Amino acid sequence: MLLTDLETPALLLDEAVLRANIARMQARMAALGVALRPHVKTAKCIEVARLSDGGNCGPITVSTLREADQFAAAGWRDISYAVGITANKFDHVRRLLAQGVQLGVIVDSVDGARALADAFGPDTLAGAARSAGRLRVHIEIDTDGQRAGLAPDAAALLDVAATLQAGGVAPAGVLTHCGGAYHCHGDPALRAMAEQERAGAVHAAERLRRAGHAAPVVSVGSTPTALFAQALPGVTEVRAGVYVFMDLVMAALGVCTPQDIAVSVLTAVVGRRTDRGWTLVDAGWMALSRDRGGADEFLDQGLGLVCDAAGRVLDDYIVVAANQEHGIVAHRSGDPARALDLPVGSLLRILPNHACATAAQHEAYQVLGAGGAVSARWPRFGGW
Amino acid sequence: MLLTDLETPALLLDEAVLRANIARMQARMAALGVALRPHVKTAKCIEVARLSDGGNCGPITVSTLREADQFAAAGWRDISYAVGITANKFDHVRRLLAQGVQLGVIVDSVDGARALADAFGPDTLAGAARSAGRLRVHIEIDTDGQRAGLAPDAAALLDVAATLQAGGVAPAGVLTHCGGAYHCHGDPALRAMAEQERAGAVHAAERLRRAGHAAPVVSVGSTPTALFAQALPGVTEVRAGVYVFMDLVMAALGVCTPQDIAVSVLTAVVGRRTDRGWTLVDAGWMALSRDRGGADEFLDQGLGLVCDAAGRVLDDYIVVAANQEHGIVAHRSGDPARALDLPVGSLLRILPNHACATAAQHEAYQVLGAGGAVSARWPRFGGW
Repeated sequence: MLLTDLETPALLLDEAVLRANIARMQARMAALGVALRPHVKTAKCIEVARLSDGGNCGPITVSTLREADQFAAAGWRDISYAVGITANKFDHVRRLLAQGVQLGVIVDSVDGARALADAFGPDTLAGAARSAGRLRVHIEIDTDGQRAGLAPDAAALLDVAATLQAGGVAPAGVLTHCGGAYHCHGDPALRAMAEQERAGAVHAAERLRRAGHAAPVVSVGSTPTALFAQALPGVTEVRAGVYVFMDLVMAALGVCTPQDIAVSVLTAVVGRRTDRGWTLVDAGWMALSRDRGGADEFLDQGLGLVCDAAGRVLDDYIVVAANQEHGIVAHRSGDPARALDLPVGSLLRILPNHACATAAQHEAYQVLGAGGAVSARWPRFGGW
Repeated sequence: MLLTDLETPALLLDEAVLRANIARMQARMAALGVALRPHVKTAKCIEVARLSDGGNCGPITVSTLREADQFAAAGWRDISYAVGITANKFDHVRRLLAQGVQLGVIVDSVDGARALADAFGPDTLAGAARSAGRLRVHIEIDTDGQRAGLAPDAAALLDVAATLQAGGVAPAGVLTHCGGAYHCHGDPALRAMAEQERAGAVHAAERLRRAGHAAPVVSVGSTPTALFAQALPGVTEVRAGVYVFMDLVMAALGVCTPQDIAVSVLTAVVGRRTDRGWTLVDAGWMALSRDRGGADEFLDQGLGLVCDAAGRVLDDYIVVAANQEHGIVAHRSGDPARALDLPVGSLLRILPNHACATAAQHEAYQVLGAGGAVSARWPRFGGW
């Protein structure tokens, strides 16, 4: 099947670029001597995850328990859920444990720890699953001040660990995500952020160990810190997600180039406004997402950077505005004389600001194989 | 089932508010004496559409041909697709016509008109369906300079009509959407925009008629213009979508109040950062969308306005930032002393900036009936 056989909009995935991105991360992890626990939230696709870990159904990270369900059903057994757990998800956790999943969860408060211990401690109905080692509770550490977690030096870290331990749930270690890396440009800044993430997590784990907890797991990661870390002593695993696809944010940070972006949205020209310099396309925010990527900090790429149907970047043509099913493509300068002026039905591709967000708007990937032909359709899932 | 039985995040739909919103629009259309063709792109839900047209499977508007498929399968037969049609969707159009759907499509260029006439004129394979009156081709009119369409006075309007007619496809009339209304605040501005939309569409239709085309259809609409139009002489139908749910953008325009918003995202507190004034919740951009609503023009509501679990607005608490599955709730002032400080697991609801965008992030509505109990689960669909 050819691109011209697809209805638009459609999400394209270049398999060769995907494989190269995966190989790059695997090589980096091998060089650092650290295990990779891919974050499958970016692709939410069994086929992509199989490529990410060589078909081994190895350790993965998820952002929803729905992802855990889907990957468990496809054979994965070592899954960490990297969003703070709440009691209204405990029944779902129990179902996953009952299926034999080794599930990791995270907590960063004494009340959260107490709820977990009450539900999964040895005296509870679920105690058997927990004591069989199937539930891992990590304490979330904040290494960048961006989101959740306890500071590596926080007194509460030991309170949370003690609360877990007192409830019969030994803390499995620490987990951190240094999203601050998404605001760093260039090698020195990214290296420094990777070291900040590593050092904070290792310090927190050492505090737990000095307090008598085994805390074997030190889990860190993001695509930028994973690729730019110079050494990871004390770290036991790295989590990263968007590296499989890359996107314009990663390009803005200097993590990749636009040519390394594996996903794009195929769209057709539906009209022209030559007086305005506009080309109207059938990819609106429903197909692209509203993610503005690095617009506030780096280059404003509108809602995406425009390529021709073969995937060659048309320099400085971006999606300047969008409605639900309409995108407006124009030259970055706004100069009407530089309108693309293509016939209705012409195909273009849009590179995403944020691959996780754009891919989430679609039900499947149209996989591009050799020669740019559509070789497969890989479904993806959503929901919670 | 109670709210506390749901896993979070979840999309809630208050049925009483939904019914009141539908009744308001129906009453307004009855007063104006114009037919309503609801735009089902907001809800993408059979149950909501049934309420919108009293169970009659009456005329509807869609933003994707997937919506047309879904509604055709559920019994609807009069469907207008309000995005410029391209040749790569013609096979899909043929399938819908073959099912007996009376399908409306739109075009605003001579090349687009020629492609349509070549594919659906009387000499083509699909001619039988067209000549049976099942394909309606509307010419899109631009009444606000925001997007697609031909100006009501454009010379090209008659060229497009002539191209269709020469190909054996009589233009069915005109269609316009005055999205400029989403940038107007208050009654006088909204009334003026409604009249601008009406007058432009009627003028274009009159030009077509003077040139010898029957052009029976004059289709206009948006929620604000539909509700604020004072009279609609010459208009044959009104399209509107978001009125079923309403949202913070509509509230910002003065079209509704926050109490009229029928959808909200139920979320649980996953953590606190009291030093920052943050309450972390499990509704990130995946559950809320990245739509910033009227942030640039009206009040910045972050990624949504926060309510307690019962749906009462907590004045000035908004989602100030979000990652994929994390939202950060804070007081609008940013004052850490005004943090909500709720225990982990507490429930909140988030009102959406843009209901179409937020609902699109979910697979189903959890319908709230009398007493706030969850009375049903109504699925919604996506894709193209």
